[in-house]
Amino acid sequence: MASYFPTVPTVKYEGSKSKNPMAFKFYNPDQIIMGKPMKEHLKFAMSYWHTLCAGGRDPFGVETMGRTYGQTDPMAQAKAKADAGFEFMQKLGIEYFCFHDLDIAPEGATFEETRANLLEMVEYIDGLMKKTGIKLLWGTANCFGNPRYMHGAGTSCNADSFAYAASQIKNAIDATIRLGGKGYVFWGGREGYETLLNTDMGLELDNMARLMKLAVAYGRSKGFTGDFYIEPKPKEPTKHQYDFDTATVIGFLRKYGLDKDFKMNIEANHATLAMHTFQHELRTARINGVFGSIDANQGDYLLGWDTDQFPTNVYDTTLCMYEVLKAGGFTNGGLNFDAKVRRGSFTFEDIALAYISGMDAFALGLIKAAAAIEDGRLDKFVENRYASYKTGIGKDIVDGKVTLEQLEAYTLKNGEPKMESGKQEYLESVLNEIIFG
Amino acid sequence: MASYFPTVPTVKYEGSKSKNPMAFKFYNPDQIIMGKPMKEHLKFAMSYWHTLCAGGRDPFGVETMGRTYGQTDPMAQAKAKADAGFEFMQKLGIEYFCFHDLDIAPEGATFEETRANLLEMVEYIDGLMKKTGIKLLWGTANCFGNPRYMHGAGTSCNADSFAYAASQIKNAIDATIRLGGKGYVFWGGREGYETLLNTDMGLELDNMARLMKLAVAYGRSKGFTGDFYIEPKPKEPTKHQYDFDTATVIGFLRKYGLDKDFKMNIEANHATLAMHTFQHELRTARINGVFGSIDANQGDYLLGWDTDQFPTNVYDTTLCMYEVLKAGGFTNGGLNFDAKVRRGSFTFEDIALAYISGMDAFALGLIKAAAAIEDGRLDKFVENRYASYKTGIGKDIVDGKVTLEQLEAYTLKNGEPKMESGKQEYLESVLNEIIFG
Amino acid sequence: MASYFPTVPTVKYEGSKSKNPMAFKFYNPDQIIMGKPMKEHLKFAMSYWHTLCAGGRDPFGVETMGRTYGQTDPMAQAKAKADAGFEFMQKLGIEYFCFHDLDIAPEGATFEETRANLLEMVEYIDGLMKKTGIKLLWGTANCFGNPRYMHGAGTSCNADSFAYAASQIKNAIDATIRLGGKGYVFWGGREGYETLLNTDMGLELDNMARLMKLAVAYGRSKGFTGDFYIEPKPKEPTKHQYDFDTATVIGFLRKYGLDKDFKMNIEANHATLAMHTFQHELRTARINGVFGSIDANQGDYLLGWDTDQFPTNVYDTTLCMYEVLKAGGFTNGGLNFDAKVRRGSFTFEDIALAYISGMDAFALGLIKAAAAIEDGRLDKFVENRYASYKTGIGKDIVDGKVTLEQLEAYTLKNGEPKMESGKQEYLESVLNEIIFG
Amino acid sequence: MASYFPTVPTVKYEGSKSKNPMAFKFYNPDQIIMGKPMKEHLKFAMSYWHTLCAGGRDPFGVETMGRTYGQTDPMAQAKAKADAGFEFMQKLGIEYFCFHDLDIAPEGATFEETRANLLEMVEYIDGLMKKTGIKLLWGTANCFGNPRYMHGAGTSCNADSFAYAASQIKNAIDATIRLGGKGYVFWGGREGYETLLNTDMGLELDNMARLMKLAVAYGRSKGFTGDFYIEPKPKEPTKHQYDFDTATVIGFLRKYGLDKDFKMNIEANHATLAMHTFQHELRTARINGVFGSIDANQGDYLLGWDTDQFPTNVYDTTLCMYEVLKAGGFTNGGLNFDAKVRRGSFTFEDIALAYISGMDAFALGLIKAAAAIEDGRLDKFVENRYASYKTGIGKDIVDGKVTLEQLEAYTLKNGEPKMESGKQEYLESVLNEIIFG
Ligand SMILES: [Co+2]
Ligand SMILES: [Co+2]
Ligand SMILES: [Co+2]
Ligand SMILES: [Co+2]
Ligand SMILES: [Co+2]
Ligand SMILES: [Co+2]
Ligand SMILES: [Co+2]
Ligand SMILES: [Co+2]
Repeated sequence: MASYFPTVPTVKYEGSKSKNPMAFKFYNPDQIIMGKPMKEHLKFAMSYWHTLCAGGRDPFGVETMGRTYGQTDPMAQAKAKADAGFEFMQKLGIEYFCFHDLDIAPEGATFEETRANLLEMVEYIDGLMKKTGIKLLWGTANCFGNPRYMHGAGTSCNADSFAYAASQIKNAIDATIRLGGKGYVFWGGREGYETLLNTDMGLELDNMARLMKLAVAYGRSKGFTGDFYIEPKPKEPTKHQYDFDTATVIGFLRKYGLDKDFKMNIEANHATLAMHTFQHELRTARINGVFGSIDANQGDYLLGWDTDQFPTNVYDTTLCMYEVLKAGGFTNGGLNFDAKVRRGSFTFEDIALAYISGMDAFALGLIKAAAAIEDGRLDKFVENRYASYKTGIGKDIVDGKVTLEQLEAYTLKNGEPKMESGKQEYLESVLNEIIFG
Repeated sequence: MASYFPTVPTVKYEGSKSKNPMAFKFYNPDQIIMGKPMKEHLKFAMSYWHTLCAGGRDPFGVETMGRTYGQTDPMAQAKAKADAGFEFMQKLGIEYFCFHDLDIAPEGATFEETRANLLEMVEYIDGLMKKTGIKLLWGTANCFGNPRYMHGAGTSCNADSFAYAASQIKNAIDATIRLGGKGYVFWGGREGYETLLNTDMGLELDNMARLMKLAVAYGRSKGFTGDFYIEPKPKEPTKHQYDFDTATVIGFLRKYGLDKDFKMNIEANHATLAMHTFQHELRTARINGVFGSIDANQGDYLLGWDTDQFPTNVYDTTLCMYEVLKAGGFTNGGLNFDAKVRRGSFTFEDIALAYISGMDAFALGLIKAAAAIEDGRLDKFVENRYASYKTGIGKDIVDGKVTLEQLEAYTLKNGEPKMESGKQEYLESVLNEIIFG
Repeated sequence: MASYFPTVPTVKYEGSKSKNPMAFKFYNPDQIIMGKPMKEHLKFAMSYWHTLCAGGRDPFGVETMGRTYGQTDPMAQAKAKADAGFEFMQKLGIEYFCFHDLDIAPEGATFEETRANLLEMVEYIDGLMKKTGIKLLWGTANCFGNPRYMHGAGTSCNADSFAYAASQIKNAIDATIRLGGKGYVFWGGREGYETLLNTDMGLELDNMARLMKLAVAYGRSKGFTGDFYIEPKPKEPTKHQYDFDTATVIGFLRKYGLDKDFKMNIEANHATLAMHTFQHELRTARINGVFGSIDANQGDYLLGWDTDQFPTNVYDTTLCMYEVLKAGGFTNGGLNFDAKVRRGSFTFEDIALAYISGMDAFALGLIKAAAAIEDGRLDKFVENRYASYKTGIGKDIVDGKVTLEQLEAYTLKNGEPKMESGKQEYLESVLNEIIFG
Repeated sequence: MASYFPTVPTVKYEGSKSKNPMAFKFYNPDQIIMGKPMKEHLKFAMSYWHTLCAGGRDPFGVETMGRTYGQTDPMAQAKAKADAGFEFMQKLGIEYFCFHDLDIAPEGATFEETRANLLEMVEYIDGLMKKTGIKLLWGTANCFGNPRYMHGAGTSCNADSFAYAASQIKNAIDATIRLGGKGYVFWGGREGYETLLNTDMGLELDNMARLMKLAVAYGRSKGFTGDFYIEPKPKEPTKHQYDFDTATVIGFLRKYGLDKDFKMNIEANHATLAMHTFQHELRTARINGVFGSIDANQGDYLLGWDTDQFPTNVYDTTLCMYEVLKAGGFTNGGLNFDAKVRRGSFTFEDIALAYISGMDAFALGLIKAAAAIEDGRLDKFVENRYASYKTGIGKDIVDGKVTLEQLEAYTLKNGEPKMESGKQEYLESVLNEIIFG
C-alpha cells in the first residue's frame, strides 16, 4: 500500500527531554495512571473531517492543502482517503475515529447514489478496521453543508429538507451500527435562525425534537444501545443556534422527554464561544448526569469564531481531565480531536505534529489531574467549605425539614453569619504547585 | 409637603413637534392602540433602587448625586425618599413601582430591627399608595449587597447565610402581599460562582431550588396568587451566574419542578450580556409559556458590564412590544425601568428627562409594533414560509405519523427539495418602512 | 444583450407608502438636501466581489447562489459578469463601483496570463463605463486569497510573496488609473499574524510600510492624483491584523511618513469588530484629517466575525451621515456597499432587494442627519458645554499660556469646580425626536 | 510597632514541594537567572491602592474587608496604613511600591488641606523608606474618583476641572521626585467619553496632550529624569477611553510630539479588554521603543470588565518575561501588582497568599522564559523563517533598492513563490516542552 505520510514515522514516547519533533514527550500510552493505562483514560479519536478532508480554505482564501490523495474519481479518492486515515491512526497510535456520512463517502447525483456510495465505503472501512483493530467512536450525518439545509435540517421551514435530513440520519445510524460505533452525534449546524423576522421559533424547536425522537426510535429498533449525543454550540454558522450550551440543551431534552437517551458531546471551543469555560460545560453535564463525550480542541478567547485549534493549554486539559476522572471516566465516549491545523500549516507532517501537540497536552492534563486528586488539597477544601450543610440547620435545609418561618426564627436567634474566606488566590497557587511542582 | 423635584412639572403629552424637554413627544397615556389605552399596554413602573437610592458611584469614583433627601436619620430619610418617589411617579404619570426590601427601609443593627424598619415603611408606603392610587408591580429582597452574601444567598457555602436570606425573603413576600403586589422576583446577584476550584456546583443548584420552593410554599400559604419571577443574568457580580439566560432558567425550573409557579422577568441588558437579543429572550419565554414581566433598559453592545441605560433604541422597543402584543400583553407583569441615569447626569431633573426618554421610546415601540401587526406583511411571510408543514409529508411529520424509513422512502421519490429565499434583507426593509413610513 | 436580472425593473422612488418591493421608499436621487442632490451626497458604489462573485459559501456550507452567468470559459464568464454588473447598476441607479483585480479578471496559469486577463477586462469594462456613464470609485488588489499569501503579502516571511503582491498592486494601480478611479485601497487581509511564536513583528510592519511607499511612488509617477486608503480591520482572517482600527493606522502612517498620501476607508462592520461604534471610527478619522471613503454595511454586535450585512439601522446611517456632512462631504470617496446577501437569500432578486434596503437606509440617514444639523440642538449643546475654554483660564490653557504652578495657584483661589450635567439621556431623546418627529 | 499582619510570617523560599501556604515555592530572590538575581529581573512592586485601600466593594455590594487599621482620624489612618504597607512589603520581600496621591494621604476640605496632608505623608513615608530600604517605583495622581472629574480631567469640558487636575499632578510629581521615584504614570480613568452626542473629541484630545506637556515641562524643570508613562485601557469607567491600547497611544504621542518623554505602563488585564494578548501589547511597545513598566495582573477572558486578578497563568507570565528579557530587562520600570484579592478573600492573610501566588507565577515565568531563550528553538525558527530578507530580492526590498516595476519583472521570471509551513502547532508543542519538560 502506498504511504500518504511517508515522512511520518510510527510515533513513540521518548520522554520530556527528547527534541525529536516526531515523538511523544508526555503521552506514554501504557503508563498506568490511577490504576488504568493512559490510553484507556484518554480514548483518543481522529476526526475524519478536519484531518482528512479539510484543505485550509477560509472565508478569505482558498485551500492551501492538497486532499485528493492522488485520485480524481470520487470513490477512488474516498478509498485512498480512508487508507491515509488508517495509516495515520496507526502511526500515531490512535485507536478510534469519528465521521460524518459525507466525510467517508461522496455525495452522488441522487440520494440513491449517495446511499450506495456510503454503503460501499462502510464495507471498505470495516475492512480497514478489522485489519488494524481501530474502532469507531461515533458517527453522524452532515446536514448543514448542502444548500438544501440553508434554512435548517430538522428546523427547516421546508418539510422536504426535514425529510431529506431524516433520510441521511437513518443511513448514518445504520453505518454507525454496522461499524460498531457506541455513539451517534447531533451537531445542529443549521439548527437555529438568522433573523427572528422570518422565523417560527416554536415550530422549529418542536420539529427539532421530532427529528431526534424519530432517530432514537429507529436506532433502538435496530439494536443500537450506545449513546445519542447533542453537541452544543451557541452560534456559527447561524446567528443563533438552538443548542446554545449544555444548560440550554438540558432544558430542551427535559421539555421533550429526550433526557433518557441523550448525553452531551462537549467541545472546548464551543464552550468558550458560549462564554463558558470548558470545565464549566463539563461540570454542568456531570452534575446533571449527561456527561458523554468530548470534542477536544481549543479556541482563541480573543476571536469570535470557531477556530478549532489543537489543544495545547495544559490548564484546560488538566481541568478537563479532572472532570472526566470525577465523572468516573468515559464509558461510550472519548476524546475526539475536532481540531484542524492552521491554514499556514499545510503539510502532511503538520498534521502529525499537531496531533502530537494535542495528545501530549492531554497526557499532561491527565497526569496533572490525577496529581490534583491524589494531592487532595483542592477536594478537601471544597468538602470543608460546605460542611455547614452536614449538620444542624444546614442539614435541615438539605433534608427539606424547615420552612421560611423556622429559618426566620433561627436567624433571629443566630444573628449575623460568621463568614470564611473563599481563598481563590490560595487555591490557584495550589493548582500551580501541582502542575509545576 | 416639600417638593423634591421642584423644577419638574407634571409631564404632559405635547406631540412630536414639541421642543419642551419636560413633555412627552410620543407617550400619550390614553391614546387607544389596538383597542387599549397606551398606559394599559405599557404598565410603566418606577424602580425604587436606581431612581431613588443610587447615587452615581462606580468602581472608579464616588457618588455624584445627593440621595439624602435632606435627612440624616435613616428612617426619616426612608420616608422622605418615599415621598420623593411618589411625587416623581405622580409627576410622570407612572402607575406602578418595584422595590427591594432594603430600598424602602434601612438595615438595622440586628435582623429584628431591620424587620421592624421594613414593617414601618410598608405601612408608610401603603399610605402613599392609597393617597395616589399608585400600585406595586412586584417586590423582592436584596440578598446580594451585604458581606454575609459574599459567597451567595441560596447558594452560599454557609448555611447561616442561606437562613438569613430565607428570613429576608419571608418578610419581602409579606411586604409584597401587604402592598398588593402581583409579582415576587428572584434576581440571583450572588447565586453563582467565582471559581470552580472552591465550588460544589451540584449542591449549590440544589439549594437554590430549595430556597425557591420554600418561598413558593410560604407565599401560597399566605394567599399570594401572583407570579414568582426569575430574572436571568449571565454574569456580574459573579463570574458565572446560575440564572444565565431564559433557556438555562427553563431547564432549571423543569428539573426542580418549579415551572408551575415561576415566570421570567426579562431584562434587556441582561439579554445582551448573555449574547442574545432582547427579542430572543422574550420569544424564548413566550414559546415556553413563561413570559412574565420586563426590566426595561438598554445596554451598550460594546461594553461587557451591565450599564442599565434608559432605553431609547426604537428598534428594540418595537421588537419588544411586538413580542408583548403576540403574548397577549401583560397580565401580572409590566415594564419596570431598571435603568439609571449616567454618572454625569447628576441632577434631579436628569431623572425626569431620562424617564421621558424611556417612556417615549416605548410608546414609539408600541405604536410601531401595532403598525407591524396591522401591516401584516411580516406575519404573513412567516406563515407562508412554513406552509409545507400544514399538508402532506410536513403535516405527517408534525402529527408524528412517519418513521425514518418512511421519510427515506419519501426522499427517494421526491428528490432534491425546492428551496425558497429567506428574504432577510427584504424583511428588514419592510420593518424600516413600517417604522419610518 | 441578455438580461441577468430579468425580474428586476429599473428601480424608482415611489415614496414611503409604496409597498412595491422593487421601489425606493426613501432614496430619491435628485431630491435636494442641504443644497445638494441626495445622490451627490451619497455617491453609492457597487462592490464587485460580494455583488457579482460571492456565491454564499461559508465555513460550514457550499455555495447556494449561481455566479457563472451562463458561461464556463473564465474570460467569457468575466465578461458576462461585467455585463450583469452594469445592468444591475443601471437598474438600481448606482453610479460607481469598486473592484479587486481578481474580481474582474480570472487568475491565469502564470502571472503573465493573469496580467493579460486583467488588461483585457479593463478595456472591456472601460467600454461598459463609456456606454453607461458609470464611474470607478476605487480599485484594489486581492493579495489575500491565494495560498502564496498564507503568511501575508507585504508582511509575508517570504520575500517572493512580497514581490508577487507588489506586482499585483502595480497592475491594479494601472487599472485604477486607466479606468479613472480616484482611490486605491489597501485592505490587509493577511497582513497580521496567527501567533507571535513564529512572527518577527518589527520586520513585518517595516515591510508593510515599504510596500505602501513603493505603491505611492509608483502611482504618483504614473500621474495618479487620487487618494490611497487603508481599510482598518482588527482581526479575521488573521488572529491580529496590523490595521486594527483607525487610531492604530494613524500611528502607523505617522511613524513611516505615509500620512500625506493615505486616508481611511472605514467599514462599519470592521469598526464594531474593533469594539468601536461606526461613528467613533469616522470621528477619529475626521479630527485627524484622514476621512476618506466608506465601506457601507453592518455587522451583528452579538457575533464575532465580519457578517458584512446590508446596512439597515437608521441610527447608524444617521450618525454616519452626520459625520460625513461635518467632514464637508465626500471628495474622492463614496459609499461602497461592501455588503453581501445572507446565504439563504440566494436569488438574483434578493441582491436588488438588499441594495434597495441599504440605499433607503442611507437616504433616511442623510435626511435625518441634515435634520439634526438644521435642528441645531445637539450642536448647540456641545458648543455651550465647552464654553469654559473660550475665555479665562480655559483660553489660557488652550493658548498654552499657563504652567502647572499657575494652574495650582488658580485652583487654590478658585476652589471646587462647579459641575454641570452631561445630559446624555436628554440628548438621546432629542435624537429620537429628530428621527421620529 | 503594632503588627497589621500578625499571622503572616516573613515569607521564605521553600521550594516546589513545600505545602506551607506562607512560603514561596518558585520565587527564590537571589537565585541567578541569565546572570542576574531573580529579584533584579522582576522588580516586584506593591500597589498601594488595591493592597492597602480597597475594601472589596463592587457595584452590587459593600465592602467586605476592614481597611481602617484601627484608626478613625484620617491622618492617623493614613500613617497606620503606611506602617501596614511597609510591614507587608518587608514580610514578602517586596522592594518597591507605587501610589496615587490619594492612596497615601486623605483628601481635605480644600485643595490646600489636601496638599498639606500629602506633604506630611510624603515625609512620613520617606522615613519608612529610609528605615526599610524599600523604594518608590512610580507615583501618580487620582484624577478620576472625585465628582469634579465626572466629565474627565485633562479632557473635561470644564476648564476648572482641568486646572484642578493639573494642580494635583504638580503635587504628585513633587511627591514622586521627593521619594526618589523613577517613573510617573498617567492612567486616564475619565479621559474618554460616554457618548459622542455631547463630546468635542478633537478639543478633548488636544487638551489631554496639553496637560501632559505641562507635566513634562514641570517635571523636567524640577530635575525629574525618570520616565513618564501612559497606561492604556480601552474602556471602563468611560465607554471609550482615549488611551485605548499601545498602538493608539503611540499614534497620540507622535501626533503631539510627546514620544520622547513617554513610555508605556502595560497592564495585562487592559490588554485583554482591548482584545489583545498581554504579549502583543508588550511586543508592540518593544518594537516601537516605548517599553517601560508593567502592571502585573490578569483578567478573565470571559468577563468584560477589569477584574484585576492576581496573575497565576504561567503561559502568560512566561511570554511576558520573554518580552521583558528581549527588551533588555527593566530600566526605570518594574512589575507592579495592580491586582486585588477577590471580594470573598477578605482576610489580611489572603493578601499575603495572593502576592505569593503572583510572585511565584512570575518567578516561574522568568525561569521558563530564560529556558526558552536558552533552548533556542523558538528564536532560531523565527530567524530562519525570515531568511529570504537577508539576501537577493528580499535584501533589496529591505534596503529600498527596488521599485514596483522591478518587483514585477522579478515575479515574471521567478514565478510562483515556494511556501513553507508556519508550524504553529509544532511551536506550541515546543513551548509546552520547555514549560513542562
Ligand atoms: Co465539535
Ligand atoms: Co468547533
Ligand atoms: Co433587572
Ligand atoms: Co441590569
Ligand atoms: Co470592507
Ligand atoms: Co467586512
Ligand atoms: Co493598572
Ligand atoms: Co486594571
